[in-house]
Amino acid sequence: MSVARADHDNALKALAAGDIPGYMNAVGRRAREASKVLRAADTGAKNRALRAVADALESARPALLRANQQDLARGRENGLDAALLDRLALDDTRIDAMIEGLGQVAALADPVGEISAMNYRPSGIQVGKMRVPLGVIGIIFESRPNVTIEAASLCLKAGNACILRGGSEAHASNAALNDCLQAGLAVAGLPAGAVQVVATTDRAAVGALITLPEFVDVIIPRGGKSLIARIAAEAKVPVIKHLDGVCHVYVDATADPAKALAIAVNAKTHRYGTCNTMETLLVDAAIADLLLPELARAYAEHDVELRGCERTRALLPQALEATEEDWAAEYLAPVLAVKVVDGISEAIAHIERYSSQHTDAIVTEDYTLARRFMAEVDSSSVVVNASTRFADGFEYGLGAEIGISTDKLHARGPVGLEGLTTQKYIVLGEGQVRQ
Amino acid sequence: MSVARADHDNALKALAAGDIPGYMNAVGRRAREASKVLRAADTGAKNRALRAVADALESARPALLRANQQDLARGRENGLDAALLDRLALDDTRIDAMIEGLGQVAALADPVGEISAMNYRPSGIQVGKMRVPLGVIGIIFESRPNVTIEAASLCLKAGNACILRGGSEAHASNAALNDCLQAGLAVAGLPAGAVQVVATTDRAAVGALITLPEFVDVIIPRGGKSLIARIAAEAKVPVIKHLDGVCHVYVDATADPAKALAIAVNAKTHRYGTCNTMETLLVDAAIADLLLPELARAYAEHDVELRGCERTRALLPQALEATEEDWAAEYLAPVLAVKVVDGISEAIAHIERYSSQHTDAIVTEDYTLARRFMAEVDSSSVVVNASTRFADGFEYGLGAEIGISTDKLHARGPVGLEGLTTQKYIVLGEGQVRQ
Repeated sequence: MSVARADHDNALKALAAGDIPGYMNAVGRRAREASKVLRAADTGAKNRALRAVADALESARPALLRANQQDLARGRENGLDAALLDRLALDDTRIDAMIEGLGQVAALADPVGEISAMNYRPSGIQVGKMRVPLGVIGIIFESRPNVTIEAASLCLKAGNACILRGGSEAHASNAALNDCLQAGLAVAGLPAGAVQVVATTDRAAVGALITLPEFVDVIIPRGGKSLIARIAAEAKVPVIKHLDGVCHVYVDATADPAKALAIAVNAKTHRYGTCNTMETLLVDAAIADLLLPELARAYAEHDVELRGCERTRALLPQALEATEEDWAAEYLAPVLAVKVVDGISEAIAHIERYSSQHTDAIVTEDYTLARRFMAEVDSSSVVVNASTRFADGFEYGLGAEIGISTDKLHARGPVGLEGLTTQKYIVLGEGQVRQ
Repeated sequence: MSVARADHDNALKALAAGDIPGYMNAVGRRAREASKVLRAADTGAKNRALRAVADALESARPALLRANQQDLARGRENGLDAALLDRLALDDTRIDAMIEGLGQVAALADPVGEISAMNYRPSGIQVGKMRVPLGVIGIIFESRPNVTIEAASLCLKAGNACILRGGSEAHASNAALNDCLQAGLAVAGLPAGAVQVVATTDRAAVGALITLPEFVDVIIPRGGKSLIARIAAEAKVPVIKHLDGVCHVYVDATADPAKALAIAVNAKTHRYGTCNTMETLLVDAAIADLLLPELARAYAEHDVELRGCERTRALLPQALEATEEDWAAEYLAPVLAVKVVDGISEAIAHIERYSSQHTDAIVTEDYTLARRFMAEVDSSSVVVNASTRFADGFEYGLGAEIGISTDKLHARGPVGLEGLTTQKYIVLGEGQVRQ
């Protein structure tokens, strides 16, 4: 019996016995074994697997919709709210999107094996870096079943084995999607352990997954801030975190007013629930009386509630009074905090204090101020004269995105295939020894 | 009174009261404040500071040697062994080396602000990455006082504030070196909090330093494996780890025997105590009877003790019997484990199982085997036809090295200035909004 087969059998035995740590240990061991095959798998095999998963989804539409109906029915019984039920729901359009996404990931360049910066050294050796997979990635997410396909496809293309722990409310849907993933791996001759969907809704599985440094190289949680913070606090494995998005737009006196208006409206109203939505607008005092009344009219058309500082309220009496909490708030709603500041220094100091270091923007036509804002604002995306809403893997040209990192180490900002890899040094010689 | 000044006073007050967590909190806050100035400091100011520290060291030679004599006297009283006393000792040659090192770091290109891969997107925005400092770096190290200057200079050049916690045995030396660092910062007009040497030998200071995520962005421990493992287990801040170096050389049947001999001898005997020294030699069975007797003669000249597998001992009866522990051992001594394997697959499997993923080498003239070894061996440095001893920041052309990372995320292998920075996204537009 092969090692992989034995690990699979051990996993099932542990699961049947209700031994969740034992089950996750076997899942982890199986992922580690699969990762050794995947890291050397050629681009063609990985792409064949992705396209075969797409074919399997196409054939499995009735089964997927049936499984999803079970989840939805149970969700309604359990009193899930309308927004959650919507995120949980699959329909033909969403299945189409998953199929299209698989094709897009297959079409992306393979990051694995890229060799860069090979240079000769005085000793005669040639040194550079090779991009290689991270190994095994654990993904913990909630409700939306399409994340199962998205995350698996990106991990696979980057040569990593993955362990997927979706929300218990999507359990039947994820199991049906897993059948399609397994079918695709089998077509390409890749190991079944390359993608494993955790087969229990027991919460102890998460606790086990994040404390297996021997088998798991990194954890990527996708979900609410409290989930992510809890995972980061308890993990014994590195975590790529996405905490909150308290994003700012600062409009300097040197801004083009038309650009400022367009950007400030778009950054707030394009979508309210996204992490790159502006939550606080900072306006230079020297342009506030010109800009704020016009902006307030535009926001009123979108029913955006304004909460302002004293100087804002002097210009906009309809604004509510902003409290200390407002400056730190991620509303994810049609609400905007507005503060009048005395120029770029106060704006940068405010951002330094309250920003979540996700995405912050300046609107200015001044070359030196633009350069200063770029150098001094310590956020994962710093934007000049464009909407914060662009902070996104697709908009940045990464081809796809597994999440946005608010960490500084390893991956910062939108994380695409490259963020799922690392680089090792390669040394090529002709028998050189150290003198 | 300035914030920085107040933090400094608070630190001293807490220290006088024996409140170590309070002291480290004030040190951390002061470092964070200084990091905001440093990240925007221009290259000229940083280089002026480095050269002024070198000048201060030159002037302070008598004071440095006096302080070091105090440490040595106390060390001898406390029964430190000869090796530790040697690492602790300063003399004019070692002070020369520190002064030269400062000049070398000043001469390195400034990594901060480098903008790369700026590309236009279909939306009209231009997106790329800017290299920026990490922020505040905590360095924990033992005995060798020159690390104080080395670490401070690299952190400063990369635009980071640093907090240095040296060994208690070097306390007086480090305090004298700190005077030179402070003098250099003052000359360049950089904040005094940019480099802080922890002014207490209380071990609680380490516990506090590694649990201050608000003020410290990353911890780099330099020292023995047990120290690093303990810090990694207890830290609430990311740690760039250097665990052990169990390095392999695999000699394939396709190797040039002269290169194999030179590399195998150099990788073991060039220095015994370094992390990139070979600890296990793997020899293809098809070349073992040709190579091993000649190698054994060379090792005998260096008094290297051999511990072999059964097949090795059939060829080299003088070798001791290797046990399971030998395959995982980092000897750091003139001892070598030797195993005869049946070709590259068995070699890679052995490395997969026992390597610490630091540096592993193959000797071969076969193109396809070289490519396979590079792709499949998952170590921070993978070497073809050269000695493992080249795995080093200076040999790789990084200009300097703060350590070697055996982690996969962020920095892997020798860590130079680039490893002390991160990248943020920069988005430049002319008023673009998301459609």
